[in-house]
Amino acid sequence: MRRAAVLVAGSWGTALASVLASNGYLVALWTRNEGQAKEINEKHTNSRFLPECELPVNIVATTDMEQALKDAELVLFVAPSSAMRQVAQAAAPHLSPETLCVHATKGFETNTFKRMSIVLAEELGRSASEIVVLTGPSHAEEVIRKQPTTVVVASESIEAAEKAQDALINSDFRVYTNRDVIGAEVAGAIKNIIALGAGLSDGLGFGDNAKAALLTRGLAEIGRLGTAMGASPMTFAGLAGVGDLVATCTSKHSRNWRAGYLLGDGTPLEQVLDKIGMVVEGVRTTQNAYQLSRQFHVEMPITNQLYEVLFEGKPPKAAVEQLMGRLKTHEMEPLE
Amino acid sequence: MRRAAVLVAGSWGTALASVLASNGYLVALWTRNEGQAKEINEKHTNSRFLPECELPVNIVATTDMEQALKDAELVLFVAPSSAMRQVAQAAAPHLSPETLCVHATKGFETNTFKRMSIVLAEELGRSASEIVVLTGPSHAEEVIRKQPTTVVVASESIEAAEKAQDALINSDFRVYTNRDVIGAEVAGAIKNIIALGAGLSDGLGFGDNAKAALLTRGLAEIGRLGTAMGASPMTFAGLAGVGDLVATCTSKHSRNWRAGYLLGDGTPLEQVLDKIGMVVEGVRTTQNAYQLSRQFHVEMPITNQLYEVLFEGKPPKAAVEQLMGRLKTHEMEPLE
Repeated sequence: MRRAAVLVAGSWGTALASVLASNGYLVALWTRNEGQAKEINEKHTNSRFLPECELPVNIVATTDMEQALKDAELVLFVAPSSAMRQVAQAAAPHLSPETLCVHATKGFETNTFKRMSIVLAEELGRSASEIVVLTGPSHAEEVIRKQPTTVVVASESIEAAEKAQDALINSDFRVYTNRDVIGAEVAGAIKNIIALGAGLSDGLGFGDNAKAALLTRGLAEIGRLGTAMGASPMTFAGLAGVGDLVATCTSKHSRNWRAGYLLGDGTPLEQVLDKIGMVVEGVRTTQNAYQLSRQFHVEMPITNQLYEVLFEGKPPKAAVEQLMGRLKTHEMEPLE
Repeated sequence: MRRAAVLVAGSWGTALASVLASNGYLVALWTRNEGQAKEINEKHTNSRFLPECELPVNIVATTDMEQALKDAELVLFVAPSSAMRQVAQAAAPHLSPETLCVHATKGFETNTFKRMSIVLAEELGRSASEIVVLTGPSHAEEVIRKQPTTVVVASESIEAAEKAQDALINSDFRVYTNRDVIGAEVAGAIKNIIALGAGLSDGLGFGDNAKAALLTRGLAEIGRLGTAMGASPMTFAGLAGVGDLVATCTSKHSRNWRAGYLLGDGTPLEQVLDKIGMVVEGVRTTQNAYQLSRQFHVEMPITNQLYEVLFEGKPPKAAVEQLMGRLKTHEMEPLE
């Protein structure tokens, strides 16, 4: 039986493990949490992250990294962005040079603002060009239920991207290749900020017209930072860009949208994070993107407003009103 | 008092009349329906099209075209696409050469597949370059309640676009100018087809991942037809493109989405149109776009599938599955 490893067992990691398991892999799902591993192996559920879902029996959870990576054809890194370096450090000594490395984490490293493929390349002693990033409009809750989903695997090495595609593709999970790693990573990270903003707007009682305007401006903002960092503008018109943005800003499944909604509704940030009980990548990404916008001299009005709401106590209503009001007279200006 | 005219009194025409009324215009709202005119003038409501909304008293309904257009600084044509030529013919003899002509109708003329600005130019004896098109993410139900909304006014004449902007802009209704009339009209029309498709997908029980993929492909499809017809690709990344697409595909206010949802749920087309009780532009637009895709040699898979569902009895499920499955391996292909 072909083997694959998934690190770690959050909702997205578990959903991707189930895709690999459907495709016939024996999947080692690594977690630090003994209780969670026991539940996955004995009950075939991961109730904290994916309630009411039964997992395939060929997903085997383990807390032993060496065992998880043994004979793995590919390893999927799906740690929160804040834990990625640590998880990569733990994996590095046990990783065979032949194992394909894919990550599906949407965010930057805090303080360094590095993209996840760079963090992995540094810790695994590989060239970043060999790393594959998986992104696109893909709520874990739907993937695990085999609802039709399309994603993108991007790598500078088309061979690596195609290997990841071969491992993951099936009739419910359609996988497309792309060479623009920077675009895929930047779009995946920044859309969580826009989703916070969209949730904020909804939480404040603004309508679908306002949210559509915010998404449009958000797509432009993602594209400006992405191209300044070296991405291809075409990526933002595709699944990794507009596709993921729409899925994240308009779905009840999105944690980032939900966090924004609660904030807009008047709940303080700490209580919001408590209520959601899982990582809200958009909060950390707002901090990082705020710095990146300065570093790359890119105008990011939505990121700036979210930063002020999250970290400087600005009232959400003032932020959204400023975003609606500050738009330029000539629509094309901010994109030129 | 400055005067404006709006033809006709559907939901979008009435909402735009209320914007002009808020901005201080005396607005003549033209309708062929005596009973509707009476209701608007006596009760200040238009209950069939905008239930539970009170209209400003400076909207005066009339069935007399000459009276409606008398001394009007601008006239807004908001007839269904199938009635636009007839309404323009009725207006032409009473229109002063100084009156600014704006339209806000999303669709093509049946059989000729002409854009609305061309139909107006022909019937009004004006150059198409003087006509202004108003489009963007703007559900009438939100505009009339003064929820924040952004729209685009596009004209080859920047002077004409700016006059329309000056007349319509206020703090709740933000108006941006653009010069790409073709892009604005094509995006506004075709997005109704994608909304039918999105509704179909939702009605069949597919999830947000599938819908996001459909929207992404839909945006590419709009862009392909639009650029083949002479539009600027940038328009599709803006409010008239992705903005309007998102608003129409994800909102409960959208008639086209609702029609698709009912079809996906198994309701026959005739019953769907009966239930909605207003014009569903996307149905007619599917016919026109199907012909335009052949005329301009452009691949439009979503339009083709919708055409087969609407007019050739194809089961909706087969259509959506074909759309999910037929996607190319390399994401960028269809955009190149």
